[in-house]
Amino acid sequence: MQPGDDLAALVLAAILRQGLTLQDGDVVVLAQKVVSKAEGRYRSLSEVMPDARALELSAVTEKDPRLVQLILDESNEVLRARPGLLIVEHRLGFVSANAGIDHSNLPGLDEDAYLLLPQDPDASADRLRSALEQASGAQFGDASIGVLIIDSHGRAWREGTLGTTIGLSGLPGLVDLRGTPDLAGRPLRVTQLAAADELAAAASLAMGQAAEGCPAVHVRGFPYALREARLDELLRPRERDEFR
Amino acid sequence: MQPGDDLAALVLAAILRQGLTLQDGDVVVLAQKVVSKAEGRYRSLSEVMPDARALELSAVTEKDPRLVQLILDESNEVLRARPGLLIVEHRLGFVSANAGIDHSNLPGLDEDAYLLLPQDPDASADRLRSALEQASGAQFGDASIGVLIIDSHGRAWREGTLGTTIGLSGLPGLVDLRGTPDLAGRPLRVTQLAAADELAAAASLAMGQAAEGCPAVHVRGFPYALREARLDELLRPRERDEFR
Repeated sequence: MQPGDDLAALVLAAILRQGLTLQDGDVVVLAQKVVSKAEGRYRSLSEVMPDARALELSAVTEKDPRLVQLILDESNEVLRARPGLLIVEHRLGFVSANAGIDHSNLPGLDEDAYLLLPQDPDASADRLRSALEQASGAQFGDASIGVLIIDSHGRAWREGTLGTTIGLSGLPGLVDLRGTPDLAGRPLRVTQLAAADELAAAASLAMGQAAEGCPAVHVRGFPYALREARLDELLRPRERDEFR
Repeated sequence: MQPGDDLAALVLAAILRQGLTLQDGDVVVLAQKVVSKAEGRYRSLSEVMPDARALELSAVTEKDPRLVQLILDESNEVLRARPGLLIVEHRLGFVSANAGIDHSNLPGLDEDAYLLLPQDPDASADRLRSALEQASGAQFGDASIGVLIIDSHGRAWREGTLGTTIGLSGLPGLVDLRGTPDLAGRPLRVTQLAAADELAAAASLAMGQAAEGCPAVHVRGFPYALREARLDELLRPRERDEFR
């Protein structure tokens, strides 16, 4: 994957190679990394000049001050810093380790190369969806599809990372089940279901192992109605966050 | 589902009805509710006498004081209480709204009926796994399978609930990818992957809508090696929890 590559065309070609087509109601899930690579979101540490705050946090976290500067540039706020750990509120609004900046799986690039998250993952999802719908519509007839962009996120109280939504287009983030009758005919009083994040975790499982040879998952049978949505609906407003 | 019903036999029969068998490496995922029902984990509010602490928290949360007492009886500690919200550390160690106690989907029972989580979900998973392995081994030859028990949990920073592990047997909670070579041949430095929780979310998505007509999911192709594990490995020790 090179900057400027046509990711939608590559995804559609991969679907066709498997003898499948994109149908109405399908969802395409993409790993953040492949979207960032197509968008050329590379930075080299050799071009970064850390400021005083980055130097200070570098001393606390034992991370390269230039990497800390990259993280700060992508963040609204530092939430926790200690040796080996830098948790921030990403400028996109979610809580994130190292602002999602990574340098694994960058073959052919030197040790200074790092990859940021897409500039605006909702907009990336919109563009990919539009391209996928157009290309597949020309071949197979009109279809409404969803596009979900995911990354691996940690949790506050539990160990391990989980595939999690960072951008979406054309599928619901949340599904509101309140008022739906239950098996006994009583209206449910449960809170909302994070349907996009359940799909993000499922797709991460399907992508499987670390080598990330499989950066895209073609989903059929998503059980909820497709609709327009933005990442914001999955993010708890700071004033209702009980644990910050 | 009635207390004492043979859940393993019902699951196996459902698999057979679909023309399938349990094979080596398969995982059976069960919704907490169906396990709790089989274990008869019902309580009636009419038999609960709230103590002073329950009355006090009832005033804060605007919940029935008898329900608050049931929640306290299932909890190690109250983490947050405000109108409509009671977040606790469940006695099983995870953070939970209302200690997982629910009274939706209890047809035939009155408004006072509530259902607790299983007494020991890891042990429930062990028993179900053993019964499934024995019954299927007698019919189709020996197979190692995993059993995962899930419930819907909220998150600290994000909206919506997500299918999440509360007990497991025979499959990994975490998968450690550190040291695995990436696409560039460099060892990965990522933290551990919460494989069981990714499967929990995927299964919750497959279970679909709220009516919970589908309380069990038969999984083939789980991408990680099966092994013995307990819920504990997914729970962050309190001293390393950055947000409590």
